[in-house]
Amino acid sequence: MSTAAPRTAGPDHLWSVDEHLDDILATVRPLEPIELNLLDAQGCVLVEDVTVPVSLPPFDNSSMDGYAVRVADVAGASEQYPAALDVVGDAAAGQAGLLHVGPGQAVRIMTGAPLPPGAETVVPVEWTDGGLGEGPVAGMRARSLAPEGATGQVYVYRPAPARAHVRAEGSDVKAGDRALAAGTVLGPPQISLLAAIGRGTVRVRPRPRVVVLSTGSELVQPGEELRPGQIYDSNSFALTAAARDAGAIAYRVGAVADDAATLRDTIEDQLVRADLMVTTGGVSVGAYDVVKEALSYAGDEDEPGSGVEFRKLAMQPGKPQGFGSIGPDHTPLLALPGNPVSSYVSFELFVRPAIRTLMGLEDVHRPRTRATLTADGALTSPKGRRQFLRGRYADGTVTPVGGAGSHLVAALAQADALIVVPEDAESVAPGTEVEVVLLG
Amino acid sequence: MSTAAPRTAGPDHLWSVDEHLDDILATVRPLEPIELNLLDAQGCVLVEDVTVPVSLPPFDNSSMDGYAVRVADVAGASEQYPAALDVVGDAAAGQAGLLHVGPGQAVRIMTGAPLPPGAETVVPVEWTDGGLGEGPVAGMRARSLAPEGATGQVYVYRPAPARAHVRAEGSDVKAGDRALAAGTVLGPPQISLLAAIGRGTVRVRPRPRVVVLSTGSELVQPGEELRPGQIYDSNSFALTAAARDAGAIAYRVGAVADDAATLRDTIEDQLVRADLMVTTGGVSVGAYDVVKEALSYAGDEDEPGSGVEFRKLAMQPGKPQGFGSIGPDHTPLLALPGNPVSSYVSFELFVRPAIRTLMGLEDVHRPRTRATLTADGALTSPKGRRQFLRGRYADGTVTPVGGAGSHLVAALAQADALIVVPEDAESVAPGTEVEVVLLG
Repeated sequence: MSTAAPRTAGPDHLWSVDEHLDDILATVRPLEPIELNLLDAQGCVLVEDVTVPVSLPPFDNSSMDGYAVRVADVAGASEQYPAALDVVGDAAAGQAGLLHVGPGQAVRIMTGAPLPPGAETVVPVEWTDGGLGEGPVAGMRARSLAPEGATGQVYVYRPAPARAHVRAEGSDVKAGDRALAAGTVLGPPQISLLAAIGRGTVRVRPRPRVVVLSTGSELVQPGEELRPGQIYDSNSFALTAAARDAGAIAYRVGAVADDAATLRDTIEDQLVRADLMVTTGGVSVGAYDVVKEALSYAGDEDEPGSGVEFRKLAMQPGKPQGFGSIGPDHTPLLALPGNPVSSYVSFELFVRPAIRTLMGLEDVHRPRTRATLTADGALTSPKGRRQFLRGRYADGTVTPVGGAGSHLVAALAQADALIVVPEDAESVAPGTEVEVVLLG
Repeated sequence: MSTAAPRTAGPDHLWSVDEHLDDILATVRPLEPIELNLLDAQGCVLVEDVTVPVSLPPFDNSSMDGYAVRVADVAGASEQYPAALDVVGDAAAGQAGLLHVGPGQAVRIMTGAPLPPGAETVVPVEWTDGGLGEGPVAGMRARSLAPEGATGQVYVYRPAPARAHVRAEGSDVKAGDRALAAGTVLGPPQISLLAAIGRGTVRVRPRPRVVVLSTGSELVQPGEELRPGQIYDSNSFALTAAARDAGAIAYRVGAVADDAATLRDTIEDQLVRADLMVTTGGVSVGAYDVVKEALSYAGDEDEPGSGVEFRKLAMQPGKPQGFGSIGPDHTPLLALPGNPVSSYVSFELFVRPAIRTLMGLEDVHRPRTRATLTADGALTSPKGRRQFLRGRYADGTVTPVGGAGSHLVAALAQADALIVVPEDAESVAPGTEVEVVLLG
C-alpha cells in the first residue's frame, strides 16, 4: 500500500496522466466488506454469491381474484349454462389454515393466496356472478361490507383448464438457484429480489468515507464577509458534492489556514473517519505550500509504508499533485492543486476512480467518447502536456466553454464534458475529432 | 389538485397508460421552494436567477509562485545577464497588508496572492535563482524552514511582459453577471460556482419526502421466518430504493396487514412526513383489497378536493392502479398493484415522473430509444394492452429476460430496460424494431 518507497522515476520525473492514475489504482484497494441492512446497501457491490433459500413463489398461489375450483366442475360452463358451485369460504393471502375444495365446491380466492387442497384451477371473478346471481360481475365486494360473499352459491360462466391463473411454486426462482452473483451492484431491482428471497441483510463493500479539506489562509466560508485579499472557499464544497456523486459518504472539513502544524493536526484528527483523504491547495512550488510541507512529515520512520509523494504531471490544468498514504492504517490521500478548475478536473480524473475502486466497482471511470470539435478558432495547447478543456457535448460534437485558465469556475458550471487534447498536439482545428470525457 | 371530481371517463373507462400519466402530471405540482445550505441543495433545482455579487477573482492576483516585479526591471534579463532585484518581502494568499514594489525591487509572491501595488508583472520562481545565487531553481523552500527567502536579492533570468501570470480582477465572472439561471440542477460544478461567489445558502425546490408502504397480510419482513402461505415483503424495499434513486427522501413503512382501519390509521399517521404517498397491493377486484376500501373513505365531504380514484389501465403488468390525493394538504397518492414486477414497472412509469415533477425537474422520464428485438421466438402480447417486458439492452438490440409473468422478480434483477409492446400488437417477431425504456 505504500507509495513512499523510492521510485525509479526519481523526483524530477514528469509524470504522465496515465502513470499517476495507474499508481493510484495499483495502490488503492477495495474496502473490506461488511454486513449491511438491505436499504443501507443500495448502490454497493455485493461480495457474496447469493443463493435462493426457498423457492419463489414458495407455494402454488392464485394470480387472480376469483374462485378456486375443480376443472371437471366448470367444464363446459357458459353464460347460458353456468356451473353452480357451493362457496365453502375465502382463501385470502396470508391467511392461516387452508380450506378444502371438494366436488361441486369452490373457495373464493384472492390474488396471492395459496391454492387450496382439492382445487385444480382458478376462474377469475369476472367469469362468475360473484355470488350475486345477476350475471358477470366486475369484481368482489369488500368482505367487511359484504361478509356473505364468502358463502352461498356462485355461478361460473366459463371453463378453465388445469392450473389456469395459478403461479406454480418455484416458477420465479428455485431454492438453490443463484439469485445474484458477487460483484453485482445493488439497485432497486436487485434489492427487490434480495428482499423477496428473505434477505434482510447482505454482505457488501461499504461506501467509502471521504474527508475533504481545502487549505489556504485566503479562504473564507461562503456567506461570510470577504476582506481584501480573501476569496471564498469553493473547493471543499465542490469536492464534497463530487465525492457523494461518485458514491462516497463525504465529510467536508472547513478550509485550513496555511500552517503546517494546524494542517497536520487537522488531518490526524480526521483520519478516524476517513477511508480516503482529499486535500486541495498547497502542493505547488511556493514557500507557503503547507500540504507539501505537512505531509512530507507523515512519511517518517515511525510509520513505515506511509508517506505522500508530490509530483509534477504532464497535464493542464492540474500539474502539481500529491499521492500517498498516511496514518497507521495507511489511509490513501490525494493532494490536489488549489485552483478550483484544477482541483475539479483532478477529482474527476483521479479521485473518482479511487473512490469507485474502494467501492469494489468494476467500472471506475467516467465514460469517454469521440466527438467533432466545434469552435470559432483552433484550440491551442502546451506541447508535452495533456490538456483537459471544459466543453459541452451534444450529438457527436463538442464545443469549448470558457478558456483554458484554471480559475474559470463560471465556465465549468456550464460544462458537461472535458475535451482531451493529447500531449503531442499544440493546436486542434475545428472539425477535428477529439476525445471527450462525459461528466455526469 | 383534486382528482375526486367526477370524470367524463366514467368508472368503466379503460385508461390508457398515457391518460393515466397525463392525469398524474397535470395534478402533481412542484414543491414550494426553500432556502437550503449549499451542500443540502445538491441535486435540487434552483428557483432563482443567481447574480454574481462580487467579481471573480475579486482582485488581480498571481497565477504562479514567483516574484512580482516591474516590467522595466526585468527587460532583457537572461541567464548570462540576470536582473538583480531586492526582495522586500512575501505576498502570500490571504495575507493582510500589501507591500509596495518600487524600482529595482521584487516581492516574493505566492499563487493567489494579490498583485502588490507597484508591481506590473510576475516572473515564475523557475525563471529565477530563488534568492539562492546558484542558478535557476525548481521551487521555493518552505518559509518555515527558510525564512530568509523573503529577503535578500533575487536573480531573474527571463523578462516578462506586463501582467504576465496575473489573473485579472473579474476575468472569471463580473459583478452583476448571471451566474446560474433558475431551473439549473445543482451538481458539483454549480455548487463550486455558488460557493466561489459567496453563496452559503440557495433557494431550491427540496427533495420530496416519499412514504412507501406495502399492504398484505401475507407479507413478512425479510430475515424473519416464513410460515405457510406467507411471502417476504419486497415491494416496500424496492420502491424505497427506487424513490431514492429518483431523487427523493424515501421512508419505508413496514407492510400493513389487510385491514382497512389499520391502513387508514397508518396512512393518516404518515401524512405529516409525506409529499407523496405510495402504496402497493390491495387495488384489484378482490374482497380483501383494503387500499381501495380504505381510500374511498379519504375522499368524503369533510375534505373537498380529496380522494383516490381506482382505475383499470390498458397495460400489462400493472392493470389496476389508484391515483388521487389525501389529507388536508391534498397529498398526492399513487396506489400501485402488489405484484413485485407490476409495482416496480408502475413505479418507473408513474411514480418516478411524479417525484421528478415535485422536484421541479424538466426531464421527468426515463430515456427511451429504439432497438432491434433479439429473441428465440415471437413475443406475444394481449391485444388492447400496452405490454412492458423486461429486457437487456446493448448496442441497439434488446433481449427479453424472463417471461411476461408479473411475479418474475428474479428476471427483473437481470433487466436494464423495458420493452414496450404497443396496444395493437399481439405478436412481435425477432428482428422487429421496438421501443425501449432504459432503466438506470
